[in-house]
Amino acid sequence: MSEWQQISGSVTAPKGFKATGIAAGLKPSKTADLALIFSETEAIAAGVFTTSEVRAACVDYCRQRLQAKASARAVLINAGQANAATGELGWQDALKSAELVAAQLNVPPESILLASTGVIGKRIRMDAMESGIPTLVASLSDEGGETAAKAIITTDLVPKTIALETIIDGRPVRIGGMAKGSGMIHPNMATMLGFITCDGMVATHLWQEMLSRAVNQSFNQITVDGDTSTNDTVIALANGQSRTAAIMEMGKEAQIIEGMLTEVCQYLAKAIARDGEGATCLVEVQVTGATDNESARRIARTIAGSSLVKSAIFGRDPNWGRIAAAAGRAGVSFHQEDLRIKLGDFLMMDNGQPLDYDRSSASHYLKKAAEGAYLKEDTVLISVCIGNGSGTGQAWGCDLSYDYVKINADYTT
Amino acid sequence: MSEWQQISGSVTAPKGFKATGIAAGLKPSKTADLALIFSETEAIAAGVFTTSEVRAACVDYCRQRLQAKASARAVLINAGQANAATGELGWQDALKSAELVAAQLNVPPESILLASTGVIGKRIRMDAMESGIPTLVASLSDEGGETAAKAIITTDLVPKTIALETIIDGRPVRIGGMAKGSGMIHPNMATMLGFITCDGMVATHLWQEMLSRAVNQSFNQITVDGDTSTNDTVIALANGQSRTAAIMEMGKEAQIIEGMLTEVCQYLAKAIARDGEGATCLVEVQVTGATDNESARRIARTIAGSSLVKSAIFGRDPNWGRIAAAAGRAGVSFHQEDLRIKLGDFLMMDNGQPLDYDRSSASHYLKKAAEGAYLKEDTVLISVCIGNGSGTGQAWGCDLSYDYVKINADYTT
Repeated sequence: MSEWQQISGSVTAPKGFKATGIAAGLKPSKTADLALIFSETEAIAAGVFTTSEVRAACVDYCRQRLQAKASARAVLINAGQANAATGELGWQDALKSAELVAAQLNVPPESILLASTGVIGKRIRMDAMESGIPTLVASLSDEGGETAAKAIITTDLVPKTIALETIIDGRPVRIGGMAKGSGMIHPNMATMLGFITCDGMVATHLWQEMLSRAVNQSFNQITVDGDTSTNDTVIALANGQSRTAAIMEMGKEAQIIEGMLTEVCQYLAKAIARDGEGATCLVEVQVTGATDNESARRIARTIAGSSLVKSAIFGRDPNWGRIAAAAGRAGVSFHQEDLRIKLGDFLMMDNGQPLDYDRSSASHYLKKAAEGAYLKEDTVLISVCIGNGSGTGQAWGCDLSYDYVKINADYTT
Repeated sequence: MSEWQQISGSVTAPKGFKATGIAAGLKPSKTADLALIFSETEAIAAGVFTTSEVRAACVDYCRQRLQAKASARAVLINAGQANAATGELGWQDALKSAELVAAQLNVPPESILLASTGVIGKRIRMDAMESGIPTLVASLSDEGGETAAKAIITTDLVPKTIALETIIDGRPVRIGGMAKGSGMIHPNMATMLGFITCDGMVATHLWQEMLSRAVNQSFNQITVDGDTSTNDTVIALANGQSRTAAIMEMGKEAQIIEGMLTEVCQYLAKAIARDGEGATCLVEVQVTGATDNESARRIARTIAGSSLVKSAIFGRDPNWGRIAAAAGRAGVSFHQEDLRIKLGDFLMMDNGQPLDYDRSSASHYLKKAAEGAYLKEDTVLISVCIGNGSGTGQAWGCDLSYDYVKINADYTT
């Protein structure tokens, strides 16, 4: 898209946002484990949370806060303990965390949002939290986006950040983001977390709608192991510091902002899938021909999440039969006579009939695609058409390797 | 239950059934790959099939046959090629297979049912099938149950058979069964297959209802990798050769027959889960307190199918947080304040509050349970209560090991 461009930076690229990350002693490893995003002025806030019935205290806390008031000044994020399945005491810890950081920032506790990632069933180490918060707040910086991104990761191999910029009315408007997650729930660690900042101003309901749509086409379309977390959270803040006119309804500017928001979410989502536990490559599934987009997305998710498809890709085995089987069990009606399956440029099945193809060339494609030979990225492309409908959808996942099992079976983690 | 007892034997334990299995040359490995079950008289036939939109030719074939006439004389089962995603030519192969075996048995083609397991996208090797069928039919035997059970397996480590007997009106009535399946869809191999014979006589609609209920509490409650096959099939035949009165409606005799049928299905289903690809133990999940049985079964399936729960058990890690997380994302509403989780006899969570427990003892339990120290079987027990409802459900799975990935990533399989 020429309407915006990627710039360097992260959640502190948009004006009026500071961030930071420190090692507060929450993680046994003594690495960075506490992050803060701060807006100099009250920001419109939107959130999308896990659909699980077993939710972390921070998820219930944020939902309550955002229902009462769709704005915030800061987001406090801890890694190490998920504070999920921790009962009443965990809830008290969440309230206390918000109060501690609010006091230090000199804002009301209601202006604080929270997110946690780490071991499920473990309460936050509140002594470390309490002694860390003054240092945390003191280290807030306009340049702190990358530091914050490092403090929210658990088993991720790399921090995940992006920033985009567009020009509206002659002024730059920026959206920045950071995310973590490598298993949907990690070993004991947990969760996919995403944080987005924007210096444009958007009406509250519109901002929430934009975020929900963007998440449906990005974070909700990635799968590493099919396990939805107790803590999954995406929070987006818009503080209006770009001084451009507030966007009150859908229109050209709103479309640009939503486009940028969606790209930020998709970039971060793909980065999470690529960094999936034990993954050697990213797998992108494109589904077309469905009756509606949600059906297409559902099939794409099912294929990307199939253990058998994932194992085959790890083995560089062009096993299109497993792709057909995964499409078939997605819970979406279609006629198998219409099925068309491509792996990269290799057409494996058309009109439901298997085609002759060169198996060794197709395996070679998988090997090279996984190494990044074609897209300058380590991406394996699977294209599936299920009929004549106009519904399309994408999903992203990774292959399933020995290391996934190793990471997740490790008693000591 | 004292109303029936286990006896030796398999699908040929009930009167009037013969079976056999031979190496017809369908599998490259030259091991046994073609099986036949034959009833000396027309038998009432019921079937439960995969819900996938991508179905093997044999599945569509059996559905059509059973819709036209709910009885059969024989079931022909091949291993090696799944005959799924094979288009019109695969359909013709299915028809031809039925005709070939019908001619040799001197029965109408409409009396033949079919099942296939093997590589998806591969047509049956019809030359081997055609030359093998006369030998197959000639080798039918009253003692052929075990031989047949060996001929239907693909990557299973052991054949799976059982037979039960009860006495009705002073006469023995028997139910026998055999099954295969170790990944829900194997590497390239496919499928869970189950075949049940009974020498009692049951009204057609009642037999189908009994089978459907039994399958819902057994085969539908096991999961190895979450991948529903294109070929999943359970077929049950009842030929009346016990000469006991026909069971026309629910009542005491019907309950005994359904109890036996359910036990046969559960025994075979657990045997499949225990023999899951790469598995080191069976995992049994018991859910109570749900509003209805289907909700309880759904939660049980989700826990048994969670990659994270499965990896933890492989690592002998008493990670109850993952069990809570899996319960939460099952799509069933409950209050997390009601959650109660036990691992063996270790109570980990009660009223949604985490409890102190001895982690090393709990890990020791997992190690010993997986080795079969407690139940004389290699079974790890997970018990979850989600509220005050009367709904209960069970599911069975296995742990997730390095070997699962190895088996499924092997390009040469």
